[in-house]
Amino acid sequence: MSAGWLDEVRWDEHGLVPAIAQDAASGQVLMVAWMNREALAETAQTARAVYWSRSRSRLWRKGEESGHTQSVKEVLLDCDGDVVLLKVDQAGGIACHTGRASCFFRKLEAGAWVVTQPVLVDPEQIYGKS
Amino acid sequence: MSAGWLDEVRWDEHGLVPAIAQDAASGQVLMVAWMNREALAETAQTARAVYWSRSRSRLWRKGEESGHTQSVKEVLLDCDGDVVLLKVDQAGGIACHTGRASCFFRKLEAGAWVVTQPVLVDPEQIYGKS
Repeated sequence: MSAGWLDEVRWDEHGLVPAIAQDAASGQVLMVAWMNREALAETAQTARAVYWSRSRSRLWRKGEESGHTQSVKEVLLDCDGDVVLLKVDQAGGIACHTGRASCFFRKLEAGAWVVTQPVLVDPEQIYGKS
Repeated sequence: MSAGWLDEVRWDEHGLVPAIAQDAASGQVLMVAWMNREALAETAQTARAVYWSRSRSRLWRKGEESGHTQSVKEVLLDCDGDVVLLKVDQAGGIACHTGRASCFFRKLEAGAWVVTQPVLVDPEQIYGKS
């Protein structure tokens, strides 16, 4: 892949950048994951969010297990070139592996993290039982 | 600082987590910076965004030079505990050092990054000439 726009991204020492997924309609910040060059290239090409799973060391096509794919409406880059922002349509309205709309469901209140979002679908139902 | 809620954050090997600042009213994602334990503690205590400047290796009280402080309305943590999301009121309506509202002013269009936001105030005017 020799696309010049990919060279303008400032990949870190592991060849990764953080990528924020934001709901294109509501503006809700859904999740943050990581992308390598290949993930960002495929995301741009297919308009489906593809990340790099650091725990599994492989491309992670968001929704490949859960069905909760992300249709990418916009790809944005910050001033330093080291963070990507995706504006997405979130399939199923669930981005988080806990079955919540967003991964940012804990809010700091009086010195404690308080859960502020309901579980919409039980994760066992999303991922199946093994 | 022995606050338990700070222990629930999964600091990386450098003792940092990425922190997203989002406009509390419009939902616009403004910027991403880094926080260490001290920065997050002070942010929570003062309700002003404080980051850790990796380039200067010191606390960076957002707006200390530019005046573009961030008044923090909510502090959120993601499911993995390794990303913080701040909902803020952005003083001056300018979060980016380039004088733009948001750092995410480049949009991918037909294989090129295109600038999508105007410079609201010339950075030389914000930071002064040395």
